[in-house]
Amino acid sequence: MRHLSANQVARLVDVSPGVRPYYRALADAVRTLVLDGQIPVRVRMPAERHLAETLQVSRTTVTSAYDLLRERGYLESRQGSGSWTALPDPAVTSDNPWLTVDGEGLIQMHAAAPAAPSALLEAMAEAVDDVPRYAMGNGYHTLGLPVLRERIAAYHTARGLATRPEQILVTTGSQHAIQIVLGVLTGPGDAVLVESPTYPHALDAVRLRGARIVPVGISHEGWQVELVTSAMRQSAARLAYLMPDFQNPTGAFMDDATRAAVTAAARRADTVLLVDETWSELELEEVPGTVPMAAHDTDSRVISIGSASKLWWGGLRIGWIRTTAALARRMALHRAAMDIASPVLEQLVVARLFDRLEETRAERRRTLRASRDALVAALRERLPAWEFAVPRGGGTLWVRLDTGSAVSLAEAAACHGVRLAPGPWFGLEGTLEGYLRLPYTQSPQVLREAVARIATARRRGRIGSVPQPDSLSPTV
Amino acid sequence: MRHLSANQVARLVDVSPGVRPYYRALADAVRTLVLDGQIPVRVRMPAERHLAETLQVSRTTVTSAYDLLRERGYLESRQGSGSWTALPDPAVTSDNPWLTVDGEGLIQMHAAAPAAPSALLEAMAEAVDDVPRYAMGNGYHTLGLPVLRERIAAYHTARGLATRPEQILVTTGSQHAIQIVLGVLTGPGDAVLVESPTYPHALDAVRLRGARIVPVGISHEGWQVELVTSAMRQSAARLAYLMPDFQNPTGAFMDDATRAAVTAAARRADTVLLVDETWSELELEEVPGTVPMAAHDTDSRVISIGSASKLWWGGLRIGWIRTTAALARRMALHRAAMDIASPVLEQLVVARLFDRLEETRAERRRTLRASRDALVAALRERLPAWEFAVPRGGGTLWVRLDTGSAVSLAEAAACHGVRLAPGPWFGLEGTLEGYLRLPYTQSPQVLREAVARIATARRRGRIGSVPQPDSLSPTV
Repeated sequence: MRHLSANQVARLVDVSPGVRPYYRALADAVRTLVLDGQIPVRVRMPAERHLAETLQVSRTTVTSAYDLLRERGYLESRQGSGSWTALPDPAVTSDNPWLTVDGEGLIQMHAAAPAAPSALLEAMAEAVDDVPRYAMGNGYHTLGLPVLRERIAAYHTARGLATRPEQILVTTGSQHAIQIVLGVLTGPGDAVLVESPTYPHALDAVRLRGARIVPVGISHEGWQVELVTSAMRQSAARLAYLMPDFQNPTGAFMDDATRAAVTAAARRADTVLLVDETWSELELEEVPGTVPMAAHDTDSRVISIGSASKLWWGGLRIGWIRTTAALARRMALHRAAMDIASPVLEQLVVARLFDRLEETRAERRRTLRASRDALVAALRERLPAWEFAVPRGGGTLWVRLDTGSAVSLAEAAACHGVRLAPGPWFGLEGTLEGYLRLPYTQSPQVLREAVARIATARRRGRIGSVPQPDSLSPTV
Repeated sequence: MRHLSANQVARLVDVSPGVRPYYRALADAVRTLVLDGQIPVRVRMPAERHLAETLQVSRTTVTSAYDLLRERGYLESRQGSGSWTALPDPAVTSDNPWLTVDGEGLIQMHAAAPAAPSALLEAMAEAVDDVPRYAMGNGYHTLGLPVLRERIAAYHTARGLATRPEQILVTTGSQHAIQIVLGVLTGPGDAVLVESPTYPHALDAVRLRGARIVPVGISHEGWQVELVTSAMRQSAARLAYLMPDFQNPTGAFMDDATRAAVTAAARRADTVLLVDETWSELELEEVPGTVPMAAHDTDSRVISIGSASKLWWGGLRIGWIRTTAALARRMALHRAAMDIASPVLEQLVVARLFDRLEETRAERRRTLRASRDALVAALRERLPAWEFAVPRGGGTLWVRLDTGSAVSLAEAAACHGVRLAPGPWFGLEGTLEGYLRLPYTQSPQVLREAVARIATARRRGRIGSVPQPDSLSPTV
């Protein structure tokens, strides 16, 4: 672990000797230095005795300052190991703006996952009142609760895609939906086409299935129909996983002509289209009029999946599959061997949230827009050589670095208090080194701080030991 | 669909012409006949006009009676198709004793899944209050919420198995736990030992993995160590799936000497033991003192799984895996590709339920004991030739029929309003034809009615068309 000497701290803190109470001023100064990235997290602070001598204050004063920092979560100590800088644990400081730091004190810029909307708690409380209707039953609803399947069907119908509840299978999140579709429709060795870059956990699911990954390149400008078409045909892809609505990570949006052409090409190539609409409600600027991909479908080869995670909250773990009624039942049989059914209460919460879709969608769009604009402004100010297109929706910027590797930058950023998702996570091994995905699913304040730290990391490189990447923190 | 003529109904209902209001007496009589299984569900009733003529009452009277039956859920009608008998939909008649009927009007005797305990709603309401601490985060906790992992670890420690929170992975139910363990520790073609009979969805999970199923016979008297040992050795089983605590479906309980011997045999055979403790808290009579299987473990080859489903409610979909901290992390990585994480709210509910474990366990044991005794008494009275041992815990009777096939009986019972789980569902193809699992997870009243209907079905065989088995109704 890197450490700071008493002299280094004394030079950084710059507290006039006359300030009272001195211990509080000292603590505030250290806190500001940590928040500003001037003192990185996980740096060992000098022993109290040394710092007291250097600052020419009593040891009690330094002890009080350290105690205050510990209490606020900016310092951690262990007997015999001294004290080191930290960021507050969100679980214990719920009134703290630094809520988006993870267990290691890093700002989580690797996940594109917004906090819960204000309507969540109310919907949860209402859902608890809905439970008694179900509590006398055994709680197993393998296809999903009728009340939620109806809401999801009506939601699709309202989007221009007539849908009956029988066509809906409720899943335990969209990752689970991807797993079910792959499990039912593909086998080991089958070719599965994915966009490159794409959603990392979709790659995991395809690998888990033992299928062969066929990447087709896209950019923030979108899909090239000829490339997608020839990749499907040449690989005889059994299934193609696409995100036409604000693609993760590029933010690209597929126009209607391309939707029609890709669907027609899938028909000719006998490829099933698995269309992930997780981000589709999060339009931030006007986009050309389109219909859902499945509305171009003529032979039941488009399967749509969606999720409560981005519009509402990832902690809900509810998603859905829209397909034919017959295939929905087949998939439900498959899922019964996986997890039997989704939780009743969670399904009731999402049904309640659908009842206030307009309200929560408007809130989510408003906050995402503000966050996107703050991230764009901060990047243009501090990292003007980085290139990106401003997406018209979704939650992520796909940034091309001017120089160097995103993996090295991510290592350096981790030393400066930011966890990043470098380009290679979004593609096959060894590609996309020059790219970085930056989500704007956090507050403008956190995003500005994150960019400041990234800029420092880029300038100064790695310092001290690199925090271990937490492989259990999903890159959603 | 079978139908009843006006004359048949007139003979059955036996209402004196002078009773007032006649329409209500008629409706009550039909309701009683349906509940008693004298008129099966899904039988077409005569047209109102014909029944009015036969009973020599006004057509309005019959219309009023049919309306009342429809309102109460005992009759369904469709324009042009007439009216047919039904049982009330539990979702719309929450104050109705027939809550345990499924969507097709059958008493669900195929699932061993109790209704929710009285503490559930309170725990849910409290859990909603716990959510704000998490709502500002992204909601993804792949290993499980620390607060729940602590509760589960303390629970194991209290049972005599010292456990740290790091050893716990929270799953989306125990089926999910089985899937994760199989996914991490076995591959296609590996031998997996299972008890025969065993839990049907475990068989599904092993099949889904493409592993080879090696059954080892057990009875309500339990396990024969030599059989288990030689089956593990001869098949070079990679993993053995066992339920030492009130085995599902036999109710067998493994004594401590057998636990020690099986664990030692697994060590010699290099077989991992996957110990399903789903039913372990539901001891109904005193059993010999034992420790959890993992307490006999000396080299980390016993993996324990548990679930909130039987002690609390299946609709919660929360389970757990106890293993080494290192393996828990490996399994969490695997589960991230499956469903990323379990729902936050549901985990908080289960954490709250752990806080009142004593209370809910006592309630559950009391009701299960009463139900078990009612089922045993009803069987001895109405089906005295059937053989079974009274289990000392768990939720199921494993019954040996005196004659005939359980599959045929299940078909007949479906015509008489009961869905059964015949023996072959609990073993490999073509075995256990002479057995039936009868759960006692419902009220004494429902169980008595179910046995009456089963006795009728056994006597009279199939009538009318057999309702299609609902393959999406899990046999838990």
